[in-house]
Amino acid sequence: MTLAEGILAGDQRALARLITMVENRPQEAISDLQALYPHTGKALVVGITGPPGAGKSTLVGRLAKKLRQLGKTVGIIAVDPTSPFTGGAILGDRIRMQELATDPGVFIRSMGTRGSLGGLAKATHNVIRILDAAGKDYIFVETVGVGQSEVDIVKTADTTLVVLVPGLGDDIQTIKAGILEIADIFVVNKADRQGADRVVAELEMMLDLSNREAAWRPPVYSTIATTNKGIDAVVEGIEGHIQHLRQNGQLEVRRRERYRTEIMAIVEEEIKARLLDLWSAGGLEQLLEKVAAREKDPFAAAREILQPITGNGKGGTP
Amino acid sequence: MTLAEGILAGDQRALARLITMVENRPQEAISDLQALYPHTGKALVVGITGPPGAGKSTLVGRLAKKLRQLGKTVGIIAVDPTSPFTGGAILGDRIRMQELATDPGVFIRSMGTRGSLGGLAKATHNVIRILDAAGKDYIFVETVGVGQSEVDIVKTADTTLVVLVPGLGDDIQTIKAGILEIADIFVVNKADRQGADRVVAELEMMLDLSNREAAWRPPVYSTIATTNKGIDAVVEGIEGHIQHLRQNGQLEVRRRERYRTEIMAIVEEEIKARLLDLWSAGGLEQLLEKVAAREKDPFAAAREILQPITGNGKGGTP
Repeated sequence: MTLAEGILAGDQRALARLITMVENRPQEAISDLQALYPHTGKALVVGITGPPGAGKSTLVGRLAKKLRQLGKTVGIIAVDPTSPFTGGAILGDRIRMQELATDPGVFIRSMGTRGSLGGLAKATHNVIRILDAAGKDYIFVETVGVGQSEVDIVKTADTTLVVLVPGLGDDIQTIKAGILEIADIFVVNKADRQGADRVVAELEMMLDLSNREAAWRPPVYSTIATTNKGIDAVVEGIEGHIQHLRQNGQLEVRRRERYRTEIMAIVEEEIKARLLDLWSAGGLEQLLEKVAAREKDPFAAAREILQPITGNGKGGTP
Repeated sequence: MTLAEGILAGDQRALARLITMVENRPQEAISDLQALYPHTGKALVVGITGPPGAGKSTLVGRLAKKLRQLGKTVGIIAVDPTSPFTGGAILGDRIRMQELATDPGVFIRSMGTRGSLGGLAKATHNVIRILDAAGKDYIFVETVGVGQSEVDIVKTADTTLVVLVPGLGDDIQTIKAGILEIADIFVVNKADRQGADRVVAELEMMLDLSNREAAWRPPVYSTIATTNKGIDAVVEGIEGHIQHLRQNGQLEVRRRERYRTEIMAIVEEEIKARLLDLWSAGGLEQLLEKVAAREKDPFAAAREILQPITGNGKGGTP
């Protein structure tokens, strides 16, 4: 039995094994991923992002528990791009969802960067697809931080929750500017802390001022995830947003964007691999030597590398 | 006179214009960048990263001022990858370096993502090179946050400062795990705040436990950037680290890594542009349609896209 067949038959160990393969030896996972592909497209993907310390993991745990009570199955992917070297091991410790960990209707996985960030985004896509094929109704993708890398990972979700928290200082304004564009739903967590009302009021004001098209105005929820306060409303908010996307055809539009990103990532990876094959390590080092010695500039070097597949010396983007 | 010639002659307006061109119409900047390339390699590049609210901008301002007193010229690039849509305009407001702004020996520029993050990293590399050719002795690259994107931008610096601050909650542990690997120097800013001593002690302990090769142990400095406290020591620390890199040949190794990243980024960009040309928008949309309908999987679609340049249908990385 292939791993894909095992996963479709409900085997949790096959699920865990294919995910590990996607992380460590992605080339070997392709045929299983291809076999699973026709069985995907049913899960709803919910992205969760926000600054460190906002309580995202606790919130995701609470949302998952509520969805379980409603009879839904849940996958949780905790992505930590801040940890390029340690492989996300630390993040696993942070996930305080022990009671969920023993529930067969919940699958939890931590992921960190092992190589490039592109690699992480791609692996995340593939894990989403595997959990989707495995029949999970909701898949949460939680990322630490609000950098571009996290945005790239989250923006392919069907619904994106941005979690904020009072008391992060004046840099919160900077953060908000970028996230206003990606948030479908805002959650102000740790709402019992001083300044929570002000964060809510500021968000509402920014939403009033923003010239987003009127089709969807992100709701702002207050929660205290540690005591489960406000969680039901957030779950309803997620369902409401998905409903909205379905009604105006945006769900398909967003998903198509996800396929596009994904396909182009495969294309890039493949090309890079071919070029590195073509350029033996020695050849590339010689070229770097010349660039280091200022005998050749980086654009000229790039053109030289490209020559085997382009057949001419023109082009080059800075 | 070309912009490159103007820059080499010390024209500040030519400098500003070429940087703007690099950001907005990178293709048009190539010939000037190529002309400047032989004049680069003299500047020392100092990366500054750390969580939002750590006071990085204020710190950079103080370091720049000190270096000016020592007769050095300074370039400052403030990179904000958290702002994929607003183009970094917000960050400009945050830079509280007004007294530096009127000093002709200091050049300050804010940058945000306009397109892809790869675009931002590449533009940052090019701006570093322009400031280098313009004769700046030190170039500071400050990034908001500690995500992978920021790491990618900062890790190509000659020296990387990681700025921490007391009172960010328990997620600080998560942050530290990733940054331990990239930090050459630690700065605990806002050292008058409660818990600063503990942050310093924790860092020293983590450094004791880490199995980094003994060649360089990152020093940990305490500063209060707002009152200029501890700044001189950090400047000495930066000079000490550069000295160390020069002595053991690591400066060249790090720089070669920077060239490699940079050249491969140009290569990727060029290939993507060619593929998008080859695949008219219509052809790509048809393919996406099939993937959306589950008639084709993303790997098969990627192979089809690659066919014009690879000449066969094999390969594909997940």
